[in-house]
Amino acid sequence: MDITIQAASGAIAVTGFADGPPVKAGPAIADFLSGTHLYGAILTALYDRERTGLGRLVEVAMIEAMFPTLASSLGMLHSNRDNPLGRTGNRHSGLAVSPYNVYACQDGWFAIICNSGEHWANLCAAMGRPELTADPRFARNSDRVQNMAATDAAVEAWAGGLTRREIFEATGAHRVPSAPVRELTEVLDNAHMRGRGMIEQIDHPSLGHIAVPGSPMRYHGTLQAPATPSAALGQDNVQVYGELLGLGAEEVEVLQREGVI
Amino acid sequence: MDITIQAASGAIAVTGFADGPPVKAGPAIADFLSGTHLYGAILTALYDRERTGLGRLVEVAMIEAMFPTLASSLGMLHSNRDNPLGRTGNRHSGLAVSPYNVYACQDGWFAIICNSGEHWANLCAAMGRPELTADPRFARNSDRVQNMAATDAAVEAWAGGLTRREIFEATGAHRVPSAPVRELTEVLDNAHMRGRGMIEQIDHPSLGHIAVPGSPMRYHGTLQAPATPSAALGQDNVQVYGELLGLGAEEVEVLQREGVI
Repeated sequence: MDITIQAASGAIAVTGFADGPPVKAGPAIADFLSGTHLYGAILTALYDRERTGLGRLVEVAMIEAMFPTLASSLGMLHSNRDNPLGRTGNRHSGLAVSPYNVYACQDGWFAIICNSGEHWANLCAAMGRPELTADPRFARNSDRVQNMAATDAAVEAWAGGLTRREIFEATGAHRVPSAPVRELTEVLDNAHMRGRGMIEQIDHPSLGHIAVPGSPMRYHGTLQAPATPSAALGQDNVQVYGELLGLGAEEVEVLQREGVI
Repeated sequence: MDITIQAASGAIAVTGFADGPPVKAGPAIADFLSGTHLYGAILTALYDRERTGLGRLVEVAMIEAMFPTLASSLGMLHSNRDNPLGRTGNRHSGLAVSPYNVYACQDGWFAIICNSGEHWANLCAAMGRPELTADPRFARNSDRVQNMAATDAAVEAWAGGLTRREIFEATGAHRVPSAPVRELTEVLDNAHMRGRGMIEQIDHPSLGHIAVPGSPMRYHGTLQAPATPSAALGQDNVQVYGELLGLGAEEVEVLQREGVI
């Protein structure tokens, strides 16, 4: 149901460019935000039960799990109720920070964000244009927001001539928050993701040698449970009906023969 | 840092249209997915501590919190490694379900998804075109995926002549999963969101009468904590330094006078 919740929550309306159609986020954000909220709510109730001895019904509405993520867009709405569209492309969703954008470069795209004056000064140094920090159009973040097109143009003029690697070397050396826009294949093959066990390679009976995700939640002192292929339909019947529910081997066989399980 | 994690995780690469640039999701999905994962991890460790008496360091990497949300795009990558771009616009991120899209209509856009043959039959009935269910191009989901352009065209031809309300009345009556693409103002003023307390109206000392989010996690038997304005800088100094840390009134005054707090 991800797309319907993205639509009803306002997430689709604020994704995309002002002169283009509304766009669904590619990742299944509504599905996963709902699931992680529910996991947190369940654990909270279990923790509460340890202290009080009482269980509790917990509830997470998908649309409500999405709502807080729209904070920047809602902030812009508050300050400018006449601009209900709210699609800002790759710029900050509240148009409140600059530079904040995805810039075209020689071999793709590159994201840069300056959350402080120091970031901006560092970016100017990285771009080899320290004089920009003295330009009144770019002095404070509020000035850069006021002159967002000129600010973005200055960054784009620099980034456009470089590769993602060259940009990252410069921004990394000058401590500017930034990242390449990675294609999926790059993410999937990323040595760091694999080294940390976030992406595991397993042998699946029907799909072959495939990559599957680990868990983003890490508990020091406990190893991640190794990834296993999802079970085929009925694969665990004997264990579930026989061992867990205590049915005899014949009873399980009858259920299987009669197509009940 | 939301935009950098969206970039590095692959989320930006798979958002947008195949013939357009990569697009950042408007909502701050990386920020919030990381936070909710961390909340769940902390509660898990607290629950574990109740049983074992031992605390634990927990860890969530933002990029890892994003990765599992790309499952549909990764599925497509697995079946077609030659299509690394992976931007499918408002269609299913794995191009594995049809109809699944955002359709233009008279007064905006409307999201429709058919997860089963029953959904599709119901949509055909809602559109007043029951004969489509007998069309071999649209028989099974795999057929509709194969003929996605024709499938979308059939839905679009119907939706394009109607308003969001008219579409929703038809899809609702026929039990087809669907939702209007709501503008932010509609979400903010939504009676259901307000009735459930997900959006609360508070009086803020500097911002005035503003709407703020409640919590998506509901625990039956416990009322939501009422929303309050965020505290001004230093507002709680006396309580924190005096009451919680036990400093005397004079000591707090000295710290304030000397600009320490």
